[in-house]
Amino acid sequence: MQYSFSSRIQSIESSAVRDILKLTQGQSIISFAGGLPAEEWFPIEHIREASDRVLSQAPQALQYGLTEGVVSLREGVLERLSRVRGIHGSLDDIMITSGSQQTLDLFAKAVINPGDVVFVEDPTYLACLQVLRLYGADVIGVASDDQGMIPEDLEQKLKQHRPKFVYVVPTFGNPSGRVWSVERRQALLDQCKANHVLILEDDPYGDLRFSGEAVPNIAKLEGKGEDRIVIYTSTFSKTVAPGLRTGYVVADKRIIAMMARGKQACDLHSSVLDQLILSELLVSETFSIDKHIEKLSHIYRERMETMAGHLQEDRCYKEAKWSMPQGGMFFWVELPEGLDAEALLKCSVQKGVAFVPGAPFFAQKPKRNTMRLNYSFAEPTIIHEGMNRLSEAVEEFLGRYAG
Amino acid sequence: MQYSFSSRIQSIESSAVRDILKLTQGQSIISFAGGLPAEEWFPIEHIREASDRVLSQAPQALQYGLTEGVVSLREGVLERLSRVRGIHGSLDDIMITSGSQQTLDLFAKAVINPGDVVFVEDPTYLACLQVLRLYGADVIGVASDDQGMIPEDLEQKLKQHRPKFVYVVPTFGNPSGRVWSVERRQALLDQCKANHVLILEDDPYGDLRFSGEAVPNIAKLEGKGEDRIVIYTSTFSKTVAPGLRTGYVVADKRIIAMMARGKQACDLHSSVLDQLILSELLVSETFSIDKHIEKLSHIYRERMETMAGHLQEDRCYKEAKWSMPQGGMFFWVELPEGLDAEALLKCSVQKGVAFVPGAPFFAQKPKRNTMRLNYSFAEPTIIHEGMNRLSEAVEEFLGRYAG
Repeated sequence: MQYSFSSRIQSIESSAVRDILKLTQGQSIISFAGGLPAEEWFPIEHIREASDRVLSQAPQALQYGLTEGVVSLREGVLERLSRVRGIHGSLDDIMITSGSQQTLDLFAKAVINPGDVVFVEDPTYLACLQVLRLYGADVIGVASDDQGMIPEDLEQKLKQHRPKFVYVVPTFGNPSGRVWSVERRQALLDQCKANHVLILEDDPYGDLRFSGEAVPNIAKLEGKGEDRIVIYTSTFSKTVAPGLRTGYVVADKRIIAMMARGKQACDLHSSVLDQLILSELLVSETFSIDKHIEKLSHIYRERMETMAGHLQEDRCYKEAKWSMPQGGMFFWVELPEGLDAEALLKCSVQKGVAFVPGAPFFAQKPKRNTMRLNYSFAEPTIIHEGMNRLSEAVEEFLGRYAG
Repeated sequence: MQYSFSSRIQSIESSAVRDILKLTQGQSIISFAGGLPAEEWFPIEHIREASDRVLSQAPQALQYGLTEGVVSLREGVLERLSRVRGIHGSLDDIMITSGSQQTLDLFAKAVINPGDVVFVEDPTYLACLQVLRLYGADVIGVASDDQGMIPEDLEQKLKQHRPKFVYVVPTFGNPSGRVWSVERRQALLDQCKANHVLILEDDPYGDLRFSGEAVPNIAKLEGKGEDRIVIYTSTFSKTVAPGLRTGYVVADKRIIAMMARGKQACDLHSSVLDQLILSELLVSETFSIDKHIEKLSHIYRERMETMAGHLQEDRCYKEAKWSMPQGGMFFWVELPEGLDAEALLKCSVQKGVAFVPGAPFFAQKPKRNTMRLNYSFAEPTIIHEGMNRLSEAVEEFLGRYAG
């Protein structure tokens, strides 16, 4: 029997990259492929204590909950956002989601009609491209450089199209690792305001800064006021633990209300236990999320520097382009032109190391000679070993390519 | 600023009923409206112990997990399904979801193209109708009686339409509380097989039987074999706790693979902590889910009988039609014709009791004189008080209606 699936679901291809990476499961392959946090630093003991406290209290911790999320967690997140990021909102302006991915899904579901245009940085977050395509959006990449989206290109494209929204990861972007300058953020905000276009500011990595000056979020630049156009989203996946599947989105309450309608139809609400654990952690006397993030940033800096050492010193990267991240989880490496990173991946996996080729991150013309390297997951000694293996693969590959 | 939302999200109306029920929040209103389990019987102490064990182990409990779900939980569910329900499958045939609602959403997402036909019982689960409409399905109700869907009507409608699937809740249906006879189950299976139509068997309440003989699931009637057409789904929400947001779906692995593709784009995976807690409970030496369900069924039977007493004895139900449930969580009451249950709800809320009017559960012509009463949530003394209040409202209403 041939089952008949929707065109929608068939628009998400099972990528060649995923197939290659699937082969690596269970093998002793060092992975720079995922976007996984360092699991040995999860505050597991504090989470256990918080879980204990939550489950010693009223059984509501296990009952159906509000679609918009547990009130104490919404309050805790708003307090921290206000204090740390200068982003303000009331209880109606925030919804808890099952992680950033769900925020993207619910927002896309709430605003995109098939054929609607959405602007993205190019390259941009791969899984966002998938969601946009799933809802039938026409995705258009706006030219971007190290400072962010280029205002002139945005202006020109805004003359040609009327996008529903612009999706950006302006702080430690995935995959680029780049940080937008404040001028570029303001330019995007001004142009979108003038054209009544919404901005989805995805900020999963913003807290993980280990050098350089903080740059204000676009949501902060916009400020409070009526008729906001910025939808701000972040997650506890990178700062506490992804297994708890908890993210949040802050926006005008009319937008939150529509996203909640979608969430109700898709899963009623997120795990109450996970939400209450995080809510406990935010007010804990023995655990400080700010100090925990500080420690994590320190650890990630060390790992980033270990990887940077190889990119600087290993001969095979002499002609590669990359820059030193100030935070986040990724190196974005441009190999010599003509080199196909997907073919390189096959060769690397044989050497016992994996990464993600950059091509699928592009909305338009993919640069096939790019790759994303994650440095947050593996410890420094493992990073050394993995980078040695990778260098072997790159050298062998460059040799083949030269010959 | 007028935000522009998708037609899709606007197709889900914020119902009048929801607006009325929202008003009851925080007030001392007795609610027979939701489908909430008895929270004072949640196995909270066992869940706390399980959570402790899980969080004393490896940090993988908090890392990103597999989209298809934690392997040990999938194995545990398969073992229990095989033992208790005679439904068999391998690891590729099952996916863990964030509750039954997500199963409906992911399945609809994976198979429905806008304009596709889906058959349902009439009345059927309200939130499924919402999901189907969200994905642009053309929903057609098949005539049903106390035994289930009527084969003659199904046959006729299969001649007129080519549905993508038939959605059924054949055991303790929501809202009807009815149990399909084995003949009707077999008839549905035979007709769907002959026409290559899938069946989504939603079974959240099947475990909660307190009287009568068990009837085999449609998935059991179909058996193992190739090219299965039954997609079976259930949840831990009614048997353990809904706050853990964990359900599961068993089907041909090609269908599971497509649903997993959708899940990856929508939330990557469900809470790993919740999954591991449930996985622990399934193999616990101090907790038996089967015994727990037995106890729950006993408790629900008592609550059902308390409510039945009022329906039998309170004068105002003399002309109402209802039948005694053998399990599940709901009474379905048909009041005298011409009586509008939504208007009655307004009156009831003033008396301090809430229920759900039946009209929104119908795919086609709604019977406005129907209501659904939940008996699982409130304790017997509360049920007495609530039913007294409801009788007052019904009498006042019948008086008004007579005058």
